[in-house]
Amino acid sequence: MTLPALNVETVGREMYSLAENLFPICRSMTGAGVRETLVRLQEHVPLEIHEVPTGTKVFDWEIPKEWNIRDAFIKGSNGRRILDFRQSNLHVVSGSVPINETMHWSRLKDHLHTLPEQPDLIPYRTCFHDEGWGFSLPHVLFEALQAAGDNAYEVCIDSSWQDGSLTYGEVFLPGESDDEVLLTTHVCHPSLANDNLSGIAVATYLAQWLAKIPRRYSYRVIYIPATIGAITWLSLNQNRVDKIKHGLVLALLGDAGCSTYRKCRREDAEINRVVSHVLAHAGADFRVSRFEPFGYDQRQFCSPGFDLPIGCLMRSPDGGFSEYHTSADNLQFIHPDYLADSLRKCVEIVKVLEGNRTYINQNPRCEPRLGKRGLYRAFGCDEDQIRLQQAVLWVLNLSDGEYSLLDIAVRSESSFGEIRRAADTLVSCGLLEEKLPGDKCQKSNNVAP
Amino acid sequence: MTLPALNVETVGREMYSLAENLFPICRSMTGAGVRETLVRLQEHVPLEIHEVPTGTKVFDWEIPKEWNIRDAFIKGSNGRRILDFRQSNLHVVSGSVPINETMHWSRLKDHLHTLPEQPDLIPYRTCFHDEGWGFSLPHVLFEALQAAGDNAYEVCIDSSWQDGSLTYGEVFLPGESDDEVLLTTHVCHPSLANDNLSGIAVATYLAQWLAKIPRRYSYRVIYIPATIGAITWLSLNQNRVDKIKHGLVLALLGDAGCSTYRKCRREDAEINRVVSHVLAHAGADFRVSRFEPFGYDQRQFCSPGFDLPIGCLMRSPDGGFSEYHTSADNLQFIHPDYLADSLRKCVEIVKVLEGNRTYINQNPRCEPRLGKRGLYRAFGCDEDQIRLQQAVLWVLNLSDGEYSLLDIAVRSESSFGEIRRAADTLVSCGLLEEKLPGDKCQKSNNVAP
Amino acid sequence: MTLPALNVETVGREMYSLAENLFPICRSMTGAGVRETLVRLQEHVPLEIHEVPTGTKVFDWEIPKEWNIRDAFIKGSNGRRILDFRQSNLHVVSGSVPINETMHWSRLKDHLHTLPEQPDLIPYRTCFHDEGWGFSLPHVLFEALQAAGDNAYEVCIDSSWQDGSLTYGEVFLPGESDDEVLLTTHVCHPSLANDNLSGIAVATYLAQWLAKIPRRYSYRVIYIPATIGAITWLSLNQNRVDKIKHGLVLALLGDAGCSTYRKCRREDAEINRVVSHVLAHAGADFRVSRFEPFGYDQRQFCSPGFDLPIGCLMRSPDGGFSEYHTSADNLQFIHPDYLADSLRKCVEIVKVLEGNRTYINQNPRCEPRLGKRGLYRAFGCDEDQIRLQQAVLWVLNLSDGEYSLLDIAVRSESSFGEIRRAADTLVSCGLLEEKLPGDKCQKSNNVAP
Repeated sequence: MTLPALNVETVGREMYSLAENLFPICRSMTGAGVRETLVRLQEHVPLEIHEVPTGTKVFDWEIPKEWNIRDAFIKGSNGRRILDFRQSNLHVVSGSVPINETMHWSRLKDHLHTLPEQPDLIPYRTCFHDEGWGFSLPHVLFEALQAAGDNAYEVCIDSSWQDGSLTYGEVFLPGESDDEVLLTTHVCHPSLANDNLSGIAVATYLAQWLAKIPRRYSYRVIYIPATIGAITWLSLNQNRVDKIKHGLVLALLGDAGCSTYRKCRREDAEINRVVSHVLAHAGADFRVSRFEPFGYDQRQFCSPGFDLPIGCLMRSPDGGFSEYHTSADNLQFIHPDYLADSLRKCVEIVKVLEGNRTYINQNPRCEPRLGKRGLYRAFGCDEDQIRLQQAVLWVLNLSDGEYSLLDIAVRSESSFGEIRRAADTLVSCGLLEEKLPGDKCQKSNNVAP
Repeated sequence: MTLPALNVETVGREMYSLAENLFPICRSMTGAGVRETLVRLQEHVPLEIHEVPTGTKVFDWEIPKEWNIRDAFIKGSNGRRILDFRQSNLHVVSGSVPINETMHWSRLKDHLHTLPEQPDLIPYRTCFHDEGWGFSLPHVLFEALQAAGDNAYEVCIDSSWQDGSLTYGEVFLPGESDDEVLLTTHVCHPSLANDNLSGIAVATYLAQWLAKIPRRYSYRVIYIPATIGAITWLSLNQNRVDKIKHGLVLALLGDAGCSTYRKCRREDAEINRVVSHVLAHAGADFRVSRFEPFGYDQRQFCSPGFDLPIGCLMRSPDGGFSEYHTSADNLQFIHPDYLADSLRKCVEIVKVLEGNRTYINQNPRCEPRLGKRGLYRAFGCDEDQIRLQQAVLWVLNLSDGEYSLLDIAVRSESSFGEIRRAADTLVSCGLLEEKLPGDKCQKSNNVAP
Repeated sequence: MTLPALNVETVGREMYSLAENLFPICRSMTGAGVRETLVRLQEHVPLEIHEVPTGTKVFDWEIPKEWNIRDAFIKGSNGRRILDFRQSNLHVVSGSVPINETMHWSRLKDHLHTLPEQPDLIPYRTCFHDEGWGFSLPHVLFEALQAAGDNAYEVCIDSSWQDGSLTYGEVFLPGESDDEVLLTTHVCHPSLANDNLSGIAVATYLAQWLAKIPRRYSYRVIYIPATIGAITWLSLNQNRVDKIKHGLVLALLGDAGCSTYRKCRREDAEINRVVSHVLAHAGADFRVSRFEPFGYDQRQFCSPGFDLPIGCLMRSPDGGFSEYHTSADNLQFIHPDYLADSLRKCVEIVKVLEGNRTYINQNPRCEPRLGKRGLYRAFGCDEDQIRLQQAVLWVLNLSDGEYSLLDIAVRSESSFGEIRRAADTLVSCGLLEEKLPGDKCQKSNNVAP
């Protein structure tokens, strides 16, 4: 199985460009921002856009009204915009109800959010579940206004909550089998680069690559608003979830931190073992952390009524870096190289998922004669040949129908790639055959003639 | 489930007073000392006293004759008591046959026991299984007598071995269920404070507290002579032991050492997990040590024909401190604070046993909407609220009928109390229901409508 | 079970003498060297010699022609032997086809093998699978010849490849049971002391000792050429391998390195646990390493169609010392003391295999009265008595039919010998009976009258 190579450098720059392109859009849980984002992604992948009407019941929830915003500001008495939505969409608390009033500082300040410990940054805030409104701003600006006394300000949020729909996107790439790998990324954050756009970019270019390869599994990539989007998708696809054999939530993939994998709920799930293996053999620091029922949409996919084998791939984890949910999570915070590194690891994960099969050694009693099959060189060997020979011996020894190639890689402390290569060699000379669904395992001491 | 609070300081002083009250009594395997001790305990708990006659067969053993002692001394030629039972009942080897003779040092000295390496202390010695007699004394005194030459001494032990009975006490506190928690402490040691009275005091005040709470389990507290008492009790209660679901041997609970738990034979017993969890979350050093078939009455309760889930809670373990089985294990060696700390841990253990149930999430597909049930605050949170929210998410995620609340506490690395509080909250709003004996576990991917 | 003691010092010297005696013989995969070696071993053990004809099919392989060599040399123009097979049989690449030509250095040098990084040593080389020939020599000599220019040399290898047979030896020592322990060592290396003769010597003296003891298991010791010999033996004994319950490949047992055990493929095999236990209690450094499907004849015995529980006992492992497969693996590299230490460990392993049985406590409810059976001393005890008493209590406690004596030794962190001694004591006083094949385990709480 030779797969198209990934030009990591080129692709890194392309993913970064995509992030630049999408950065200015004011996304939210619902509304024009998500829709515009998905339309632009259709230039890159065959993405189908779904609209689910306000009021639709989705499990314990209901699709909310659609929120949209056109403009927002705070003006001083001189009519100048002190705070301007057009400068940064983070200035408005996402989900704010419309307001258009002149009010004094003493009232206004209760609607302002800052980060006193990071006084130059604008925090990202939301209020979807109550009829509130608010602005976010650097704490230094708050203090300057505070010092100016109880002045009157013109306060405007030109937003609307109206019947509409929740919007999400889906790319489906059929494979040999109906069994699916689900890849999911959220599309509900405004101008935040790592916490949203990095996941969108990696998911999109991974889908592009997947579209080009022969696929054993079918792949579904979904672009959904966090929480309500995952709940909606699961509600609409209940009859399909038992096809999902593996999956990944993709998020926070563009920063300089080392790769972090958060396991899915089922400790022994293959996806947990695959990602752990890939990260361990990627030649760089990494973290594998336990499942937790909070943080991104594993909350929904791993809820006990679904318990899907869906892990979460990140670099610095959510809440684990100071730029998280602030205006510092901008285009300078992510880099083409880190996006490319994340994509490369996703590709490796897919390669293991695709290539992890179980074989039966066709010559199980004693070693087969490798020499007559050209698999053994009598005198001396370079390092690479020695490793391949050892991999061949491991695959022959453990291919009794109980060990998958990943099991063999783990037990032999080899990389999956080496083991896969050894298996390919052995298949090509007839020493190995794939175990089919009905096949039994070889029994130990099964030596009757 | 709100339980009566424990006024630890008051109770510590009361337990210490009880130990002071019982300290002078000369307890032994059988006889008046045990009986008197149990009678005094009846002032504190509804204790029933049982008498098992000499000669009764109990498994491989037989109830021995009853041993009693009134006086004992060694007098010099001037008629003065050099050694006086009235000064310390440790001076007489417990179980000594009567003697009343004048004999020379050269013979007497073979009946004397000392601790050359702790020359000021009197050792505690017994001779129940042969017709011997002896005295214990400080090694310094032994050396002074040795130096005085082969003088004659009047030697008297006014003891008796006669048909009588083995005496033990039992407090039974019925609960909702016939299933029992067995608490046991030994009552056969003379004036030793930690190795006997501390266990008696904690068991008694734990029983007092248990009497006041609503009980899911029934509780049985037994006050028995070590070894033969446990064998006797098991022999008389063979038809009842299958009701025992958990248990603790209580001993050595008043010294300054850190809490030590010795596991029961079954490694995976719930009591092992409960005590380990409670000690790990008690905010102090602790030890959990492997099961060993020696040391206190776990020898009997965990013998292979019973294999009961009964661990042993101590502070410094038996044989693990230099005062053990000497006159230095006196009322100065124990302290109200340590008794209270031990009792507090027993209460925590009971709380986990009582509160450890298994629930079923009633909204297993995706998260329930916590906000509409008042369980979620949209903006900001204090530390305690965040922990409760996380505990709520853990309980919802893992309550599939396979995980008990203790399992959830362990997997989530939370304290049982936090998890129990989260479960109470979720039960009260209908999101959780207790799993009943006939209920099946939720299956993964059990998502059919 | 008292077994004949091993006079380790005497036996060490005898094993070393045997190695000295066999060292000069030029062994190879087949031929007179192996045959002569086995004939000499018949003076020590009742060894049966088997000949398997050239051309016999053995699984994927076939018995090759027989290789023999009488002489070989390289002569300079003055007729003096520059390289002389009679000086060291390592000088000829094992399996070389005959040659008798005068040739120039420019051609000759392509047939010469040296170790540039160990310039004074002769490497051990083979060419069994192609029609080649070659000489091995110290790199310093190679360089001197190289410096001498393109001289002509008389090159002679007086060898032959002819129909004949593969030769191997077998010692069979029947025991009470048909179940077998297989001990195997290779006999195909020329003058190498550690990598061949040490294993032969230890296997032979172990067989001598086994012949003298009462045996529960039958023992089979096979002396075979590596790889093809193991394949041949397995092919001829397919109907017998299910009798093999435990086994060891014996190799590299005479050097100063610490003992190393390489596990067999089945992680939980008793032989893995036994050898690990013996080495851990031998009072010296040791290594236990994972199974690998390369290295000595575990490759064949642990191939998936057999998966026999056969580990490998060594000192410094194959490839793990610089003398490996060079002329420095000579009689100075091994020592009687190390041979004796290896043999002593083999004897301990056999003792555990022979003595590891499962018993049932005949007095499972509460402790039995040890005193009346003379098993308990009331006052004081020396260290050894205390350890025996504790071992007695462990054996009583865990002998419920689930724990073998080895299981008990492991759980109690005792040596197998202590546990075995305690069990013997308990058997002799009727408290323990061996579990027979049909017996059930005692159930926990199995206390019905």
